[in-house]
Parts: sequence; C-alpha cells; structure tokens
Amino acid sequence: MTTISTIGIIAAALTTGAYIPQAYKTIKTRSTKDLSIVTFTMLFIGTILWFIYGLYINDTPLMLANGITATLSGIIFSLKIKSFGRRRRR
Amino acid sequence: MTTISTIGIIAAALTTGAYIPQAYKTIKTRSTKDLSIVTFTMLFIGTILWFIYGLYINDTPLMLANGITATLSGIIFSLKIKSFGRRRRR
Repeated sequence: MTTISTIGIIAAALTTGAYIPQAYKTIKTRSTKDLSIVTFTMLFIGTILWFIYGLYINDTPLMLANGITATLSGIIFSLKIKSFGRRRRR
Repeated sequence: MTTISTIGIIAAALTTGAYIPQAYKTIKTRSTKDLSIVTFTMLFIGTILWFIYGLYINDTPLMLANGITATLSGIIFSLKIKSFGRRRRR
C-alpha cells in the first residue's frame, strides 16, 4: 500500500471516528450548553446527503463513513434539542 | 447540473461550513466544558491529513474543504487547550 493511500485511510478513520468521544461525553454528561445547535444540524443534514450521494454513485467507503458520522451527529443533535425542552420546563 | 451533483455540492458546503457556528460560539463564550478534546484533536489532525492527501492527488475541492475545516477545528482545539491552562491557574 502506498504512503498516500495510508494517509487517506488514517484521515478517513480520524474524521469518521472523531464524533465518538463527543457523542459519549454528551450522552454521559447530558450537558450541551457549549455545543452549537447550528453546527450539529448542518453536520447531521450534510452527512445524510453525503450518504445519499455515496449510495447513488455506489461508493461504499463514502456511504460507510458518512453513515457513521450521520448517526453520531444525529445523537448529539437530538440531545441538544432535548436540552431546549428541559430548559423550557424549568 | 444533475441532481446528484447538486446533492454533493450542498453536502460539501454543509459539512465544511458546519464548524463556523461552533468556532464563533466558542470564540464568543470562551466556554469549552461540553466540547470533547479528543473529538477536536482527531478532527484537526484528520482534516490536515485530508488536506495533504488532496494536495498529493491534486484535488482542489478536497484541499479547499479540508483546509477550511482544519482551520476552524484548529481554532476550537486551541481554545479548548487554553481552557485547561486557565483551570490550572485558579
């Protein structure tokens, strides 16, 4: 395997796996004050669109990476939305 | 332009621009407690590797998107590191 494809695979693993620690921290602490709702809305919709794009051009790595990222950013997004609900009930 | 390339462009714009609101919020509030340091370390390194990969295969959109994301996640990453420093001095 060439150096550059190794770099590509590491980059893909890092940027796909990057949301696991944030999803874990948010699930554990339920604290989302510092997270931007706009960022996770854009990430959630954007990665779903990338998933559809990968589906259409039959690119499995693109589907896999964005399927994972969409799921993780979706979890964070829904916890952020829930926190708005909790704040109103206080 | 076909529907699927429109989907790809919107996906790219959303996932690249997604970090602008988070960087803005973090710069304004200086509050990073809810942000995962591991996530932004992985994003920062991952997007730099994608940038190098794009440079190597001469793919300008890949370089541009990841150059922007690396800069934004780098800003958030450095503010998070700084917040560790502030906590130790208290």
